[in-house]
Amino acid sequence: MLELASDVIRDVVERALREDVGSGDLTTLAAVPAEARAEARFVFREPGVLCGLPVLRAVFAAVDSALVVTELRPEGAHIERGEAVATVAGPARGLLTGERVALNLVQRMSGVATLAARYVEAVRGTRARILDTRKTTPGLRALEKYAVRVGGATNHRFGLYDGVMLKDNHLAILAAQGFGLAEAVARARGAVGPMVRVEVEVESVEQAAVAASAGADMILLDNMPPEQLRAAVAVIAGRALSEASGGITLETIRAVAESGVDYISVGALTHSARALDIGLDIEVG
Amino acid sequence: MLELASDVIRDVVERALREDVGSGDLTTLAAVPAEARAEARFVFREPGVLCGLPVLRAVFAAVDSALVVTELRPEGAHIERGEAVATVAGPARGLLTGERVALNLVQRMSGVATLAARYVEAVRGTRARILDTRKTTPGLRALEKYAVRVGGATNHRFGLYDGVMLKDNHLAILAAQGFGLAEAVARARGAVGPMVRVEVEVESVEQAAVAASAGADMILLDNMPPEQLRAAVAVIAGRALSEASGGITLETIRAVAESGVDYISVGALTHSARALDIGLDIEVG
Amino acid sequence: MLELASDVIRDVVERALREDVGSGDLTTLAAVPAEARAEARFVFREPGVLCGLPVLRAVFAAVDSALVVTELRPEGAHIERGEAVATVAGPARGLLTGERVALNLVQRMSGVATLAARYVEAVRGTRARILDTRKTTPGLRALEKYAVRVGGATNHRFGLYDGVMLKDNHLAILAAQGFGLAEAVARARGAVGPMVRVEVEVESVEQAAVAASAGADMILLDNMPPEQLRAAVAVIAGRALSEASGGITLETIRAVAESGVDYISVGALTHSARALDIGLDIEVG
Amino acid sequence: MLELASDVIRDVVERALREDVGSGDLTTLAAVPAEARAEARFVFREPGVLCGLPVLRAVFAAVDSALVVTELRPEGAHIERGEAVATVAGPARGLLTGERVALNLVQRMSGVATLAARYVEAVRGTRARILDTRKTTPGLRALEKYAVRVGGATNHRFGLYDGVMLKDNHLAILAAQGFGLAEAVARARGAVGPMVRVEVEVESVEQAAVAASAGADMILLDNMPPEQLRAAVAVIAGRALSEASGGITLETIRAVAESGVDYISVGALTHSARALDIGLDIEVG
Amino acid sequence: MLELASDVIRDVVERALREDVGSGDLTTLAAVPAEARAEARFVFREPGVLCGLPVLRAVFAAVDSALVVTELRPEGAHIERGEAVATVAGPARGLLTGERVALNLVQRMSGVATLAARYVEAVRGTRARILDTRKTTPGLRALEKYAVRVGGATNHRFGLYDGVMLKDNHLAILAAQGFGLAEAVARARGAVGPMVRVEVEVESVEQAAVAASAGADMILLDNMPPEQLRAAVAVIAGRALSEASGGITLETIRAVAESGVDYISVGALTHSARALDIGLDIEVG
Amino acid sequence: MLELASDVIRDVVERALREDVGSGDLTTLAAVPAEARAEARFVFREPGVLCGLPVLRAVFAAVDSALVVTELRPEGAHIERGEAVATVAGPARGLLTGERVALNLVQRMSGVATLAARYVEAVRGTRARILDTRKTTPGLRALEKYAVRVGGATNHRFGLYDGVMLKDNHLAILAAQGFGLAEAVARARGAVGPMVRVEVEVESVEQAAVAASAGADMILLDNMPPEQLRAAVAVIAGRALSEASGGITLETIRAVAESGVDYISVGALTHSARALDIGLDIEVG
Repeated sequence: MLELASDVIRDVVERALREDVGSGDLTTLAAVPAEARAEARFVFREPGVLCGLPVLRAVFAAVDSALVVTELRPEGAHIERGEAVATVAGPARGLLTGERVALNLVQRMSGVATLAARYVEAVRGTRARILDTRKTTPGLRALEKYAVRVGGATNHRFGLYDGVMLKDNHLAILAAQGFGLAEAVARARGAVGPMVRVEVEVESVEQAAVAASAGADMILLDNMPPEQLRAAVAVIAGRALSEASGGITLETIRAVAESGVDYISVGALTHSARALDIGLDIEVG
Repeated sequence: MLELASDVIRDVVERALREDVGSGDLTTLAAVPAEARAEARFVFREPGVLCGLPVLRAVFAAVDSALVVTELRPEGAHIERGEAVATVAGPARGLLTGERVALNLVQRMSGVATLAARYVEAVRGTRARILDTRKTTPGLRALEKYAVRVGGATNHRFGLYDGVMLKDNHLAILAAQGFGLAEAVARARGAVGPMVRVEVEVESVEQAAVAASAGADMILLDNMPPEQLRAAVAVIAGRALSEASGGITLETIRAVAESGVDYISVGALTHSARALDIGLDIEVG
Repeated sequence: MLELASDVIRDVVERALREDVGSGDLTTLAAVPAEARAEARFVFREPGVLCGLPVLRAVFAAVDSALVVTELRPEGAHIERGEAVATVAGPARGLLTGERVALNLVQRMSGVATLAARYVEAVRGTRARILDTRKTTPGLRALEKYAVRVGGATNHRFGLYDGVMLKDNHLAILAAQGFGLAEAVARARGAVGPMVRVEVEVESVEQAAVAASAGADMILLDNMPPEQLRAAVAVIAGRALSEASGGITLETIRAVAESGVDYISVGALTHSARALDIGLDIEVG
Repeated sequence: MLELASDVIRDVVERALREDVGSGDLTTLAAVPAEARAEARFVFREPGVLCGLPVLRAVFAAVDSALVVTELRPEGAHIERGEAVATVAGPARGLLTGERVALNLVQRMSGVATLAARYVEAVRGTRARILDTRKTTPGLRALEKYAVRVGGATNHRFGLYDGVMLKDNHLAILAAQGFGLAEAVARARGAVGPMVRVEVEVESVEQAAVAASAGADMILLDNMPPEQLRAAVAVIAGRALSEASGGITLETIRAVAESGVDYISVGALTHSARALDIGLDIEVG
Repeated sequence: MLELASDVIRDVVERALREDVGSGDLTTLAAVPAEARAEARFVFREPGVLCGLPVLRAVFAAVDSALVVTELRPEGAHIERGEAVATVAGPARGLLTGERVALNLVQRMSGVATLAARYVEAVRGTRARILDTRKTTPGLRALEKYAVRVGGATNHRFGLYDGVMLKDNHLAILAAQGFGLAEAVARARGAVGPMVRVEVEVESVEQAAVAASAGADMILLDNMPPEQLRAAVAVIAGRALSEASGGITLETIRAVAESGVDYISVGALTHSARALDIGLDIEVG
Repeated sequence: MLELASDVIRDVVERALREDVGSGDLTTLAAVPAEARAEARFVFREPGVLCGLPVLRAVFAAVDSALVVTELRPEGAHIERGEAVATVAGPARGLLTGERVALNLVQRMSGVATLAARYVEAVRGTRARILDTRKTTPGLRALEKYAVRVGGATNHRFGLYDGVMLKDNHLAILAAQGFGLAEAVARARGAVGPMVRVEVEVESVEQAAVAASAGADMILLDNMPPEQLRAAVAVIAGRALSEASGGITLETIRAVAESGVDYISVGALTHSARALDIGLDIEVG
């Protein structure tokens, strides 16, 4: 699985700490002696998939390099309610200053990983793989896409820079300029290099056929019921990858998956995942 | 109401665009002619409180200053399903490049404002006011706290830098250093200036009495049932502000509010708000 | 006492070094062999309060982590003329490159701490505490406010973000909008959360009474002679904190303090403190 | 005269505003209506040299580009007590938010310019020109060196990057490495290009002679009484520029200047200049 | 053709100006009156492909927004010796301050575009397209890849983030871990999403066959003579794109292209392109 | 010789890595196990001067501090074809991620050093020293100027901030303002301090005489044939340094040097140096 680049972690963590700590953590600087030490345990208060250990390490390393984080369970493990997943020990000030930022990040990442795992489970046994979208939290995309992977799902493109995707709004604008679906695909294909894939959104089986013929690498089948998806997959006939998308829920996804599509993208993985309830229990050192 | 500082908006928007656009929006640069123009409408696909217009403006201004945003409904309005709230018109490339970032931010902010409004509604007629917490999305705190205000609720402190809050973990560590509750409050009070308020978390009515006597400005009453809250409010007797906190939901909040506390803090406002479903419908220009 | 956040120190030090060193310290890179080592002592050339040791450490750590700083006297100590307060030893290049920045910062911080201590001494035995203001050196506020604390005085708010303060200019503008003093206080109070204190400036005893009734947390008594201050304190009657301000000097401050005000703010602490004369004497290693 | 680079101004102003405003100006956002407008005048409360108009403009432009600054007196003018030097008019919020930062910068810059002008006046009629040093406020060097110029004095090098200066500490370390004064000068001269000047500090007339012979471009005569300076100037005989330095005050500088040195450097210009008393008087718009 | 993102241009230009101008352009600030105006023409002193007009505009806009750039020839045009391609007119100071940075960038970009055009010309009529590599100037990759496009060639991936490429060194390390060529391709393919293409480097026709069977999207044929390339293309049989690479020059490229490969990558396009000789001729305004 | 400031190295390296790695090195994160280790050797594939070891160290330190770089040959050494100059060993992922950036920088720096050494060699035995120019790669000036020094040549000014240089375009504009050559020099000289040198470009022997009389510190003799240079040197008569410039090649430089000029500046050192062919050969660890 693609791991999280350490550079990305550092950047998010620094920004998060700057936002929370600002000109200084008044409470600990005012009340907690510099020499006080403590130890604490991260405990899951509800079951879920653990995600965010590298980020948790980075938060405390950034706050005070004397803090020691020990992992009790591995990244990606399914954790029970009440189970401890990691400890942090060392200078009490740093521990308290980093607590909230660490929790905010790990709760969110574990929430995404847990939701992704649920979707993956729902399509087990079919050929379909679950994809995320660009509907991520601004500033946290890399972390959320990583959480999607930890949950067992697959990443769509990372941003506007690493893939071409002609969506409904692009096509509407191109149509007004006199470019039909096939021409739109050809324009894009001709402008980018061989390492860039071109995906296009279609709304009918006929359009799917046109897109496949025009050389699209991947075709997004928007809001189609299962039978229509099946017809679209048939007409694409392996010339391009297929992706079902649009309002798919845990309830409806199995039927979608059984239509034979290669991928199903689910915006909810990132835009509607709830923070998992995880706490930090202090044991004074 | 406290408005959002333009400097903060600019910073979030720049970062979000850099994350999404990176080395360039391949799709529009490849396929959409530089001279194409378009217009689009932001439409609510479910009812909710509109929040994020200044951010929406900033996204398109940052992408291409030739884009014109027109507001159809004011910030904070209650919007029906299907209602349009703003339009954006101008160069099609910029419109398409900014679309996702604009939606990601406005959907999230409107989601928080909508949830906050629901909590405010639930306590209407009591003296209690709804507070947010520091359980916000890393990097987006200012926006989420603003959305809380737009929803009619009140902000707790902004970060570790603008208020002292001795929570359970601080008190446990201070106890191990030999400082009791009253001493902890006194230490903090003595270290900070007169413009800084000191709040302390207590778990019993007795502790609430001690905290009030020790000079705390505000007392967090943690996880107390309504009768205990009532007793705590009585013992504080106006010497400090009171805040109920801990696992309070839309179902339980009314009873909490009727206990007579000044404030009720709800982490879910920000850590578990769902993105509101808002779309961008293109009308080619 | 509230210590200085390490993050803030690092930021100031990096900027200061970048400003001074720029594309490189031509003199040491050109003339001093990389392997040369040296030791030097920081010596006070006039008496004063030592302030800035954490900054001094940070300067040399940033320039070359092989440099070792040893403190001979503690932060806040009263130092005699000719006394050494710290040594720095290690690679000669780094020592020379960091010298000026370290001195510029420590001289300034010790100058502020020394002046603050003088004001604190002048009001000893009264209830009044000395406050600083926002009249600090742009870019160095956190360091100067820390020096104020090291000198024994107390910090007013840190910036525009952590407290409300309605000053004469705000009130003039609000009056033109039809908002009187009481309404101004109410507007501000209603817009901010419970952790934010609201202070208001008044110019007469009558206004002080209005402000106290309107719910101000703190009242700035502007440019009042001692008897008027005494009357204002009486009329406030403990409902708000009181702060005397405006052109108060070491000569006049005792009389002000004896009026019974809670706080006296002195802009000169930061806007007119002289750099203390401190030197770095090399002893070749 | 060398003007201030706009890039430098922008950088200082942005940082100063970020420091003061942080997450937002609570007072104006809370209490002042967005549509309120105002006008204000910058008034000197004591006589001095006006310095900082470009910075003042930049502060208000950064806060709100709708604010209009009008200059009543030119940069560098000698201003009387009570005289207004500029007005600012427009949205009241921005005016109030920028007030303190603008004043902090202009008061400091005018303070430096005023002090510099006093030193320049003291040596009028001699050949000596007044130089500043690197004893500037960290982060504000470019502004303070500009203020020195506005006051009629001359800048020494800007930092460690644009000139070689072998001071006592360099020479002590080089001596321990076996390099005498002449060799030190030669090492430095050989390592840098033809656009870089090399200055060296000497403590006797004999050393001045050695330095001149070794090819130094400029010689710092440290702490010498006027007669010794005269002898040093004679022995240098035009082969290098001469600079007197070390504890020179307004009282002693005339005698130093009459010794015939080319330059006199005065650290006090920047490290001990007092902020000039300048106020902002609101006239509601 | 994929245009250059304005955000990228701004970033490069700001950095370049900061590097060159630093604390200020001494020459123009010292010698050129603020009110002087001038006009100048960019003139090719040797023939080549014009590239960099958007960058040239950005440099002068950043230096002084009052400068007006007028394009005389379009981006990508073939320019003769002595031909003028653009003019810049306005405040003389800004024109002089921006001159060198503008020339440094446009000379380099035009140099790359000119070289790329020469390679494209050399393979005209064959199916092969010219690709660039990651052997670009650190910090200028986006500009150089854009110049490659302006010259008519095609971009390979933009960085390590937008495509998988298993090169000789990756394969050697993976072999030591027990992963053969086919397993290496499978590992990579399984870890990344459907929008990411996977390329692998091979050194024999046999390996090319293995790579194609293992599901590689593109196969780099390293240092093969034309006949071997032809055999590799035959064995790949359209299952993957083919890329010839390794020491190919303007002399040898035609034969390579005639082997039937889809792409030929040429590191020299960016690592060895010479700056084109372009001058700026002032005509005083 | 002036070494490269570590701060500058760090800045360039971070930027280069961010550009290349972006949101993550897909290939190594996807395919290479975290625990794999490797060793590799940097080998010259053509003869040249080694330059860039401190940068090479910094790249790998930034990617993964567990990587160990060992230098086999010293900076500045003349290296034969096939010779190894350094090894890097440690975690395979980091080694692969840093490879390209390290090579891109070291190849370029060694290319510049090699070319500079060739020019230095060409004038050996004359008094002339080789100078670089500001025709450097935007963003890499400090590295290229350092490479020039490693090759044995000398640096001209570093940017617009550390020296005054009145070139043809400045003089044309000043002439239009009514300032002749002598006045231009005087204006500049009067505006800057004593540590700043003033150079002026002239196109005739007469102008050289005027410039020397006007007090220029250095005179650029533009595009003069050797005899004219000789006459100019004679007329300057040691009152200023002389610099020959303009289209000088390895073929013509000897004759230029023998004219007696102090310096010869060669833009090609940096604007047209080819990247040296250096490879990284993996030996699996």
